[in-house]
Amino acid sequence: MTRSFPETLAAAVVARGCPLVVGFDPRPQRLPQTFTRGASLPDAVTRFYRRVIDLIRDLVPCIKPQIAFFEAMGHEGFRAYEQTCAYARENGLLVIGDVKRGDIGSTAEAYARAHFAHADALTLHPLLGTDSVEPFLAYCRDAGKGVFVLVRTSNPSATEFQDLRCGDRTLSEHLADAVDRWGRSASPQGDYSAVGAVVGATWPDELGRLRARMPRAWILLPGVGAQGAKVEDLASAFDAHGLGGLVTVSRAATECFEPQDAAWEDKIVAAVAGLRSSTARLGTGDLR
Amino acid sequence: MTRSFPETLAAAVVARGCPLVVGFDPRPQRLPQTFTRGASLPDAVTRFYRRVIDLIRDLVPCIKPQIAFFEAMGHEGFRAYEQTCAYARENGLLVIGDVKRGDIGSTAEAYARAHFAHADALTLHPLLGTDSVEPFLAYCRDAGKGVFVLVRTSNPSATEFQDLRCGDRTLSEHLADAVDRWGRSASPQGDYSAVGAVVGATWPDELGRLRARMPRAWILLPGVGAQGAKVEDLASAFDAHGLGGLVTVSRAATECFEPQDAAWEDKIVAAVAGLRSSTARLGTGDLR
Repeated sequence: MTRSFPETLAAAVVARGCPLVVGFDPRPQRLPQTFTRGASLPDAVTRFYRRVIDLIRDLVPCIKPQIAFFEAMGHEGFRAYEQTCAYARENGLLVIGDVKRGDIGSTAEAYARAHFAHADALTLHPLLGTDSVEPFLAYCRDAGKGVFVLVRTSNPSATEFQDLRCGDRTLSEHLADAVDRWGRSASPQGDYSAVGAVVGATWPDELGRLRARMPRAWILLPGVGAQGAKVEDLASAFDAHGLGGLVTVSRAATECFEPQDAAWEDKIVAAVAGLRSSTARLGTGDLR
Repeated sequence: MTRSFPETLAAAVVARGCPLVVGFDPRPQRLPQTFTRGASLPDAVTRFYRRVIDLIRDLVPCIKPQIAFFEAMGHEGFRAYEQTCAYARENGLLVIGDVKRGDIGSTAEAYARAHFAHADALTLHPLLGTDSVEPFLAYCRDAGKGVFVLVRTSNPSATEFQDLRCGDRTLSEHLADAVDRWGRSASPQGDYSAVGAVVGATWPDELGRLRARMPRAWILLPGVGAQGAKVEDLASAFDAHGLGGLVTVSRAATECFEPQDAAWEDKIVAAVAGLRSSTARLGTGDLR
């Protein structure tokens, strides 16, 4: 029987001793010069991330490639995305494809087929409702896959629609309730379900309220570092075992050096080591 | 000076005498056998749509490729999407990339760069609010591009969140108001703005109310045909000149034959001709 995504994820977090997700957002001007000299951009990106994966594969449980930056390089960039995901999975890392797809049922089936081929879990837009999420839940039930549904995004304009009060709840709270419902449908048993949520780490006050509405969701927490959120504000996402939350860091981990810096490998390892120790004791748990 | 997207679109609709958009949703099992025999799937898709574009380029103003079905073929499918968009534009068709992207600002910039390279206009998710849409509006202002923002989707579960009552308005009505606001920001002048909306043709009662809230938006109307909507229910999207709405049809136009049918070209032309005459006199206008 296929192991469920929440079980696989919990085991990986415990094995690596931290709930850290390293984001891959390939910005051409931020790659080490050693890769970009004389190479095509997609090739430089692929080779850079192979090396990053070698460096971090024993340090963190997951990576989160942001597909937008790969798509910006056209179909060769899409291939670099595929190759990066494949190499990460070969090396024992879980891949959360940050694709934020969301469409009507027949199209959602095509997206699920397209993207679960490369990733263990995907980020999803919930605006179209249950029938748009259901094709992804089928993969959660049958193929050990997972999803992270947008509940509260990390950007400043998140307040515009997500804070609208609809009856006795905000829209984000309605979305959190849907995550809990979809999670019970995809994963009737276990502490956590295969249906997680995205809650921006930039909104610590909302985090506790949203966690209470979806007690079985793994919460993906973007926004630490470049977007200004602080690790110590995220405790309410975590349980007594240090599980339930995933802190994602992109620029602070993979753009922590200048392109001409020969010591870029050491700097990435040092940055990830620092982030590991600051995230390993979140909540009342201690993964170390 | 670059012509604005709403001007380009209106001219194309008038020139072709119909507000019809042909959707390209490549389902492998629905391609004519003449293309699939002995060929790779992405090549078969590319060659099929080249022929479809030859057949319809003088009959309709726009095509709408649904990128999910291309992504399901991996990076070769992404290349087929690029090639199909390029061939359509070379042949004078406007391309609405049905990509439904929506992400935080720095990522949205990458998506805008990625997808406006191939398409004249894009469909967008609005859940993240103004700062997630702004990078696309910059292309509307400066590069003659357009967007169609999800306001009310065609699927049955659309009611789940989009009908939530937030204060004196539903969420869809809040989104329609944002479309109007973003349209005034991107296109201060003219009858129509570069910021259009997606309103499922499956919801004729909502269509009139939403049109009243965003009088300057081109409205993209999916759902006719396979999803059950009827052309005659869409009049309220259109103005006295027959402009302002775009009827999109996918399966009814490009899957109107069996894969082994040798007469597939004639059937596509006949289906599109029928749809042209039924859409040319929508509202009080008459484009013929």
